[in-house]
Amino acid sequence: MTEGADIEREDSLTRVEAFSDGVLAIIITIMVLELKTPVSEGLAALWPLWPIFVAYVLSYAYVAIYWVNHHRLLSHARVVTSGLLWANMLLLFTLSLIPFSTAYLGEHHFSREATLLYLLTMLAPALAYVLLQGRIAATGAQTSASRRYHKASHRKGLAAAFVYAFGLPLTYVSPWLGVGCAALVAVFWMLPWSGLDRLFLDRHPPA
Amino acid sequence: MTEGADIEREDSLTRVEAFSDGVLAIIITIMVLELKTPVSEGLAALWPLWPIFVAYVLSYAYVAIYWVNHHRLLSHARVVTSGLLWANMLLLFTLSLIPFSTAYLGEHHFSREATLLYLLTMLAPALAYVLLQGRIAATGAQTSASRRYHKASHRKGLAAAFVYAFGLPLTYVSPWLGVGCAALVAVFWMLPWSGLDRLFLDRHPPA
Amino acid sequence: MTEGADIEREDSLTRVEAFSDGVLAIIITIMVLELKTPVSEGLAALWPLWPIFVAYVLSYAYVAIYWVNHHRLLSHARVVTSGLLWANMLLLFTLSLIPFSTAYLGEHHFSREATLLYLLTMLAPALAYVLLQGRIAATGAQTSASRRYHKASHRKGLAAAFVYAFGLPLTYVSPWLGVGCAALVAVFWMLPWSGLDRLFLDRHPPA
Amino acid sequence: MTEGADIEREDSLTRVEAFSDGVLAIIITIMVLELKTPVSEGLAALWPLWPIFVAYVLSYAYVAIYWVNHHRLLSHARVVTSGLLWANMLLLFTLSLIPFSTAYLGEHHFSREATLLYLLTMLAPALAYVLLQGRIAATGAQTSASRRYHKASHRKGLAAAFVYAFGLPLTYVSPWLGVGCAALVAVFWMLPWSGLDRLFLDRHPPA
Repeated sequence: MTEGADIEREDSLTRVEAFSDGVLAIIITIMVLELKTPVSEGLAALWPLWPIFVAYVLSYAYVAIYWVNHHRLLSHARVVTSGLLWANMLLLFTLSLIPFSTAYLGEHHFSREATLLYLLTMLAPALAYVLLQGRIAATGAQTSASRRYHKASHRKGLAAAFVYAFGLPLTYVSPWLGVGCAALVAVFWMLPWSGLDRLFLDRHPPA
Repeated sequence: MTEGADIEREDSLTRVEAFSDGVLAIIITIMVLELKTPVSEGLAALWPLWPIFVAYVLSYAYVAIYWVNHHRLLSHARVVTSGLLWANMLLLFTLSLIPFSTAYLGEHHFSREATLLYLLTMLAPALAYVLLQGRIAATGAQTSASRRYHKASHRKGLAAAFVYAFGLPLTYVSPWLGVGCAALVAVFWMLPWSGLDRLFLDRHPPA
Repeated sequence: MTEGADIEREDSLTRVEAFSDGVLAIIITIMVLELKTPVSEGLAALWPLWPIFVAYVLSYAYVAIYWVNHHRLLSHARVVTSGLLWANMLLLFTLSLIPFSTAYLGEHHFSREATLLYLLTMLAPALAYVLLQGRIAATGAQTSASRRYHKASHRKGLAAAFVYAFGLPLTYVSPWLGVGCAALVAVFWMLPWSGLDRLFLDRHPPA
Repeated sequence: MTEGADIEREDSLTRVEAFSDGVLAIIITIMVLELKTPVSEGLAALWPLWPIFVAYVLSYAYVAIYWVNHHRLLSHARVVTSGLLWANMLLLFTLSLIPFSTAYLGEHHFSREATLLYLLTMLAPALAYVLLQGRIAATGAQTSASRRYHKASHRKGLAAAFVYAFGLPLTYVSPWLGVGCAALVAVFWMLPWSGLDRLFLDRHPPA
């Protein structure tokens, strides 16, 4: 069976997005369940929750960025192929591990091991995303705007993966350097209106 | 990159709404998990659950109001800009803290500290909402109906934030005064058909 | 503000349905979390879970019926009014209490108290549904098919509420009679293709 | 009431899909909650989690396959009948038991009993799926492409059910043979572009 054979109605893309939205909405929300209410009185009893809260903020930003990127990426798709479906399922699987590594990071107070595991669960979806983008670049819209988008977004994705990979050895110097790498990528993706984006575009984009 | 550059297809608004719906549906529903079934027999064993139940009712109403307002606000948007996306993510983040402060409020029986924390987690989404409304007012529909909507809704939002802020010192007099302020805002938003709305409209709206 | 003033675009109905779908999907699914895996070996250790499983089956059927009815009811709506929004939020609130009363029913092995509480949480959404149907009958489609639908569905809803109310005193005779009433209503709603429906239609429907 | 009488607008299919998406997204995501973070330090403490992780991977693949198949199947439906609605609800119910049997499989380290229960919760949705497909084949699109799809998909479904049923006695030889059967079906469904699909098609499909 060639991939062309299982091309489906364009509106089935809507259902892929809806399912992904559901999974991402649940992933982003169940992380807050880790914030367990202290039994003892007084606001001071809330203080020991700070590592869990910081880990939640970081992972919320991370999943939110994936949602935004996923939403942009799928707007360039045109057909639902088996390759797209399974690459998307793989991406959602890797993202579903984030609540676990986030809880581990928070409960173990940003220890070296927890930071390493966290960076690894950041690398996994980054690689799955590259796979999904490859499928969509191959079978999606072939306009010059789409090609430009894929080029810039692919370079940005590789840069992010590089920063995560770079953070892994840095964690042995200090876990906070590893966490800093993860935070750096988050800030860098959340500012798409910043000048940074221009670094990943060709010098002379068509007018 | 100017904001005009990342304008997307109008139907991508649908996906922003779908994701927000998912997150809000989960937030509103996981709060009920705090109602843990008592082990001992008899309906009398249910009685100690009342503070958790009251806190749930209050927060359910609160999140439901946000859903209704969010739904109205997004019907005035026209394009999905980065500003809209991230303001929306910030709003959902602040709302995701409500199950935590609700559990804290219920388990600590509306203590002063719990009420203060609760009012703060009510203030945070109110401020994020103002930010989101600002983005949509700037890039959304520019009809006179939309402008009138934004004006009235902005005033109503500021009034709500003012009542929450006013509730913070009142909590030192009695936690119930603070809870009363939160309940007052809820009632006041849930009655959009009441005469109250007219207070926030101009005297002479165009026919 | 008259209700006509807050009439919105017809497609905003889609978002009301999407949010309701999200809440119902979560309600129906979190009930399964009560089925906690036994620590001891052997399938015999699963046996004590039967009351929780039976309670889950009953409540799953119940929420599924609400989803089907809600889906039919909203197909007769035409505009999103404040009345519709808040009646819908009230219905979702009453349904959100079902996981609690289901867990209580299962953990307390269908005791009298648990059955009473369960029947009460069945009555509450039945009443909220009548309210929602009233709003939609007033502002929705006014075709003869819609009017016939509302008439038959309203009678059927009252019959169901009557069976629940009748189950309350029967629970004092035996909790299983109360549970039987709840099961009876479920079977009776799940067989819309049965002859029973004809009981609630006028004798001489227009051709 | 004949089934033709409750035929609804085609777009109500969208809501059936949306609700199913919600339920499947929650089922797939709550399984990850079983991965509980170890309290003790060091990555070695993560090692005992492997059976839970392997069970999660298997069940994630399984539910993802159901989503993909369900998505394809519903694209052949044309009307929402009572039969379709209730067969779909039954399918979602059987799938909702998977988080339970997955947790049991992982926590009991792929014991014989846990594997038997797991295979049974794989068989149940397979049978419910056959029922749903029967309803859609009867009332959905009647094009030659749809008929070819239903034929191939039905044969593939029966083959899968046969492999599960075959795995039940094999579990008595070794639980891993039972788990292997479940994994075999997963691999076999996830490769729709493989030559395997041709086995289930007629030799001479119309051009």
